[in-house]
Amino acid sequence: MSDRTRLRRKPDRTVEDRDAIHAVLDEGLMAHVGLVAGEGDDAHPVVIPMLYARDGEHLLLHGSPASRLLRTARAGVDLCVTVTLLDALVLARSGLHHSMNYRSVVVMGRATEITDHAAKVAALDRLVEHTIPGRTSRVRVAHDAEVKGTIVLTLPLAECSMKVRTGGPVDDPEDLDEPAWAGLIPIGVAVGAPIPDLGAADDPVPGHVAFWARGPGQLNGRPPPAGDTT
Amino acid sequence: MSDRTRLRRKPDRTVEDRDAIHAVLDEGLMAHVGLVAGEGDDAHPVVIPMLYARDGEHLLLHGSPASRLLRTARAGVDLCVTVTLLDALVLARSGLHHSMNYRSVVVMGRATEITDHAAKVAALDRLVEHTIPGRTSRVRVAHDAEVKGTIVLTLPLAECSMKVRTGGPVDDPEDLDEPAWAGLIPIGVAVGAPIPDLGAADDPVPGHVAFWARGPGQLNGRPPPAGDTT
Repeated sequence: MSDRTRLRRKPDRTVEDRDAIHAVLDEGLMAHVGLVAGEGDDAHPVVIPMLYARDGEHLLLHGSPASRLLRTARAGVDLCVTVTLLDALVLARSGLHHSMNYRSVVVMGRATEITDHAAKVAALDRLVEHTIPGRTSRVRVAHDAEVKGTIVLTLPLAECSMKVRTGGPVDDPEDLDEPAWAGLIPIGVAVGAPIPDLGAADDPVPGHVAFWARGPGQLNGRPPPAGDTT
Repeated sequence: MSDRTRLRRKPDRTVEDRDAIHAVLDEGLMAHVGLVAGEGDDAHPVVIPMLYARDGEHLLLHGSPASRLLRTARAGVDLCVTVTLLDALVLARSGLHHSMNYRSVVVMGRATEITDHAAKVAALDRLVEHTIPGRTSRVRVAHDAEVKGTIVLTLPLAECSMKVRTGGPVDDPEDLDEPAWAGLIPIGVAVGAPIPDLGAADDPVPGHVAFWARGPGQLNGRPPPAGDTT
């Protein structure tokens, strides 16, 4: 953890456990990627949602060369990639003690482009597998032109930090007799029944899809990895 | 919409409908707030998750004066606030056509601090009401010291843009015979049963809480506003 990512505020919410950081990144579906666009007086922050994947001690990002954000990031500018999982709304007995329970990982650093063809294909497979485990073996192999026409970036997890809030509301002691109901409303990811594309309507839903979509009400994220995801 | 927020890429995904932008901001629970920290060679982006609220044509943010991000934002630097709702995973017949359906609003600009006491109290109420409609009338009134000890910022929606992806996978025509199942896995917000705080365990769950938490499986966001949220 660098000085930049050391948390000044509420250090008790800081987590340094590498496995915990990996777990948040593996559970998240979307990252918010920030960089500084423009120069001089025109310099301003830009924050864009992106799919991502973790590959060991790196984050992978990808996109079209037509994407200004990807082209800028490829040039090696500083990035800040944040993945946040919302776990609960925290209802306290006073307005200002309302809060949320969450797990959030912030990764800072400069990305480098993966240009080696085989490494790029492997990274693109990781990106699909991150979102839908078991998927890559079921779709056709990427064409060389598709791979060439995609930017893939890798960002080391060297400079990253995690912040977590758990538990119930923290009220002022003198507020504990207030009549307001206090507690948590748990929040997670809901998954609906798969909707087949035209032409796929009569196909049985395969295991790796049904696995993801085994019904709504998956609180706190995606279903845990299971043995049989055929 | 300014030149900065005009989307260069996939302009067909751009939405200029003011009501649609408001709807995304009203449905979202969390924003990712980006700014440029440091100066000169040390300038780097920082992206932090925050609760927020919409108040007409402004976004409201708040936090402690101990928060470095809030202190920096208060000074009037450029911000980029992004709210993203994930609606579906898009499974195509080839890896690189996999995508996600989402609605995302990006707001750029400089925030100003709300210092007038009454306006600040109203803004803090809006922040609670955004997350839990009907809540402010059930908690005690904020103490003056609490209000003084909180930074509240307002950011105009003048410079904002929305990007949306809907619909099924867009496959190459020659891939339509591929055996891979293709379609959508809908994603939304799951809401669990309320967990009462110590001391509130025997209290009946009030309507404004039960309303939010009326069971898991709320696909595509929070429950719609209802008449009776007592």
